[in-house]
Amino acid sequence: MPLPSHREQHLTSSAMLQDIVIGLSDGLTVPFALAAGLSGAVQSSGLVITAGLAEIVAGSIAMGLGGYLAGRTEVEHYAAELAREHAEVRTVPEVEQREVLDLLIGMGLSAATADLAARELTQDPGQWVTFMMKYELGLEKPDARQAPKSAATIAGAYAVGGLIPLSAYFLTATPQQGLLWSGLITLLCLLVFGYFKSRLTGQPPLPGALKMAATGAAAAGAAFYVARLVQHH
Amino acid sequence: MPLPSHREQHLTSSAMLQDIVIGLSDGLTVPFALAAGLSGAVQSSGLVITAGLAEIVAGSIAMGLGGYLAGRTEVEHYAAELAREHAEVRTVPEVEQREVLDLLIGMGLSAATADLAARELTQDPGQWVTFMMKYELGLEKPDARQAPKSAATIAGAYAVGGLIPLSAYFLTATPQQGLLWSGLITLLCLLVFGYFKSRLTGQPPLPGALKMAATGAAAAGAAFYVARLVQHH
Repeated sequence: MPLPSHREQHLTSSAMLQDIVIGLSDGLTVPFALAAGLSGAVQSSGLVITAGLAEIVAGSIAMGLGGYLAGRTEVEHYAAELAREHAEVRTVPEVEQREVLDLLIGMGLSAATADLAARELTQDPGQWVTFMMKYELGLEKPDARQAPKSAATIAGAYAVGGLIPLSAYFLTATPQQGLLWSGLITLLCLLVFGYFKSRLTGQPPLPGALKMAATGAAAAGAAFYVARLVQHH
Repeated sequence: MPLPSHREQHLTSSAMLQDIVIGLSDGLTVPFALAAGLSGAVQSSGLVITAGLAEIVAGSIAMGLGGYLAGRTEVEHYAAELAREHAEVRTVPEVEQREVLDLLIGMGLSAATADLAARELTQDPGQWVTFMMKYELGLEKPDARQAPKSAATIAGAYAVGGLIPLSAYFLTATPQQGLLWSGLITLLCLLVFGYFKSRLTGQPPLPGALKMAATGAAAAGAAFYVARLVQHH
């Protein structure tokens, strides 16, 4: 097996980090809010835990399988577009050459330079197609091995994120106590997670932390009042 | 108010359609699976409905608000990168010129043509920066008005998607009957939705329909068994 280059390693780890962020964002928010909502409407921690675990399983599978299928679709889409561009370069080269020319003029080149550049770029069919895929269609070749890895990472992160707020209901006697501890633990986790997520993506970390916590609190608060409203009817 | 061009209208409607697809995909799957899971563990349709509505509210807010904040972050990120490119073009023009040249050589141009093209592209600072943003960083200017619209559309689609499977529990006497009808209605909706979603994105529609339904069925099945397992402990 060849050693992956430094750049590939960097890309792989950041794709994984991105998947962890996607899974954790939703996992920390939705099961937390659902459990909080139910704790205002039912008397048994067992019910909150049952619903919470069902949600975590449902959400993990929906997100993981959804992500896997979306990744597979992306790979198929790229292959189909690549085949089409290859066919077009063979069958209607003058149309495709015109597209390259238009693209280069759109970049800001003079007609003469664009003409020269277009002739160079369309000399080799392989290079021509690569250029069209990347700069006309904006498509980068997706990594086929990425889809299953990505699915597992998102599902796992969602489950980990969801178990954090739910753990409070395991360790307390009533749904009300569970809600108190779940809220404290989860808001703290959302603040810390939002802080690091923002630093990772180059955003101001403090506002990022507050936004993340506010989203969780808004979802939990709304779920709490809706569940209480429904149960009282 | 100026009339939007045809192209902008096309972009707006496809962005909206994309948001509807995102919201419906998850809305049809996760609340359906949660309700199915609970119906195997509790005796009251009221509890399934309470938990289902709490989930729909939590999920809508988490997805909608999450989408809104992500959109805002994208707008801020673009503005920050734009300011940085403008500053770099002013303070280290020779470094930036070298980057344009490398990019053009990477496209497949000869050194002489790339040099000519780079000189043309860097004549006007505005055009230069636009070129760097689009082709070096791969960033398109995001529409700032898109974020709130997108958030509302995703949240609304999630709620509509979630109310479809839940409606069966309103109209039946026991959770078991609710599950039967909910499963039938939702799998039908997932098939139809998967079919049109695939046609919309240019994928083969029949496999797309089956994949969508299989994801929902897998999530619901797993949630059902986990909830039953937990409740029996």
